[in-house]
Amino acid sequence: MGEFELIRRHFQRPGVQLPADVSLGVGDDGALLRPRPGHELAVSTDMLVQDRHFFASVDPAALGHKALAVNLSDLAAMGAVPLGFTLALALPEADDAWLSAFARGLFALADANTCPLVGGDTTRGPLNICITVFGQVRTGRALRRSAAHAGDDLYVSGRTGEARLALEHQRGTDWASAATGVHLRDRLERPSPRNALGVALASVDGAHAAIDLSDGLVGDLGHILAASGVGAELDVALLPVAPEIAALPEAHRLECLLAGGDDYELLFTAAPAARDAVLAAAVTSQTPVTRIGRITEGNGLRLRGAKGRPLSLRVQGFDHFA
Amino acid sequence: MGEFELIRRHFQRPGVQLPADVSLGVGDDGALLRPRPGHELAVSTDMLVQDRHFFASVDPAALGHKALAVNLSDLAAMGAVPLGFTLALALPEADDAWLSAFARGLFALADANTCPLVGGDTTRGPLNICITVFGQVRTGRALRRSAAHAGDDLYVSGRTGEARLALEHQRGTDWASAATGVHLRDRLERPSPRNALGVALASVDGAHAAIDLSDGLVGDLGHILAASGVGAELDVALLPVAPEIAALPEAHRLECLLAGGDDYELLFTAAPAARDAVLAAAVTSQTPVTRIGRITEGNGLRLRGAKGRPLSLRVQGFDHFA
Repeated sequence: MGEFELIRRHFQRPGVQLPADVSLGVGDDGALLRPRPGHELAVSTDMLVQDRHFFASVDPAALGHKALAVNLSDLAAMGAVPLGFTLALALPEADDAWLSAFARGLFALADANTCPLVGGDTTRGPLNICITVFGQVRTGRALRRSAAHAGDDLYVSGRTGEARLALEHQRGTDWASAATGVHLRDRLERPSPRNALGVALASVDGAHAAIDLSDGLVGDLGHILAASGVGAELDVALLPVAPEIAALPEAHRLECLLAGGDDYELLFTAAPAARDAVLAAAVTSQTPVTRIGRITEGNGLRLRGAKGRPLSLRVQGFDHFA
Repeated sequence: MGEFELIRRHFQRPGVQLPADVSLGVGDDGALLRPRPGHELAVSTDMLVQDRHFFASVDPAALGHKALAVNLSDLAAMGAVPLGFTLALALPEADDAWLSAFARGLFALADANTCPLVGGDTTRGPLNICITVFGQVRTGRALRRSAAHAGDDLYVSGRTGEARLALEHQRGTDWASAATGVHLRDRLERPSPRNALGVALASVDGAHAAIDLSDGLVGDLGHILAASGVGAELDVALLPVAPEIAALPEAHRLECLLAGGDDYELLFTAAPAARDAVLAAAVTSQTPVTRIGRITEGNGLRLRGAKGRPLSLRVQGFDHFA
């Protein structure tokens, strides 16, 4: 199977119609996108590498899902509606069964988000998946890391920590040995990006900053605080906790909740006057949302534990080069 | 040096102003682009892998240049004006000297094309460079592979074959042993994408199809013919030939000219009535352009050699999985 046959067999989908805002897709020097008038184009890129982002043993369908999911999650954090994506793929060999499963997982999520593949590149090399995703958002309405105001409420979607627990289980870590089950594995390998919530929030007056949780709650919150020049109080006791996380010893529970990574939930801020609108956005998007703290003047993050007692923790986000 | 420090030190450029059509750049979940009203967005992505696209010994500044150049070349082939690019980078280690040189080569070409870095991703892994580039083109004016008409003239910019000759020299191939010199090495390692020509052609009424030459002249012409449902006659005797190529034995000369690869010249078609306008576009863009054949009814490519005699050749484009 040559390069063009590989693309034709696994990545061209002649039966699938392109949406009106994509005027040229796979097969030319590039794609052509037409954001609607009054909209700007949101762009994000993520690269996944074996043994850093996934193990060689991962189900290729789950890998196809996750490679797009982590990119869609960035669009969600900007409040942008997905338009399409490009896929650049380095493969050690042209393995038909692997490619077929990978494409199945990839396109299932793409179709569910009306986010067609519009172009790409394939080459031989150590397995590497680089997706760049495009979305559109009304001009000036994108959620930004730098937009948090002192006095804002701080919210998180869904729950954090389960992906980390599943990862530690796969690594054979002793405190995670009981953490079996499809649900936990799916949280790690098939994250559900929060695009419906992000898009709904972009229409909420008073919704300010947002980020998607990829490196861990505290680390990613730190990005909002630094970009916005503010501080925060986080009520750890308010964090939603999965049963498997609740069952852990406290240190590991907090590690999962606060520094787990790979959550792909949204962390966002909104003015207190917008509480009803935020709730409505959660309902519209069928996404659980929890208020977990507030943005403060100054800088620095204060964690509060049970009964509001200050918690002192060393937590660190994931760093590929640390 | 951690991941964020690596990005800050080598890829954030606080002194560099973003153009008006980029409203948010490096440092958020994604970038925001604003194509001008009446324009659509052109997108292309290319992945470069060690030992496939470059050798480990390559000057990192040249690699930074080339990684962006091959992407800009795709925009050139669509006639789109560069807007910005994202960079995803997998690195075996955080090597300051390497990164500094890579960034220098990358940003020199980016600045020359007013094409800012707007976002990216870094991770540890086998060296892999994935760039996605964005451009804007007046709606409906993009040059497409599928737009060639029977009767069109066929043109090529610059000269083909020198990059292939330089590659064979680096590989130690005997017939390329005399092909030394900075000029040839630059043709391989520092290609000059033809963006000025591509943009000028997109304004020429009667300019139809275009492709950039990455896999070899005959192979890439084949993509235009297949996409447009036409054939072509190519006068090999009309091809511009560099002195180093002219000095080769005929079989190797033709291999370089017709199937060299890595040329990053534009191959394009235009109606005979547009000859003066094509010439004007070449002058405006200060790019040599040569008429080398014509598009015909039917399909298939006929090569003509000296005195118009038919040439029969087996030539093949580069295929990563063949």
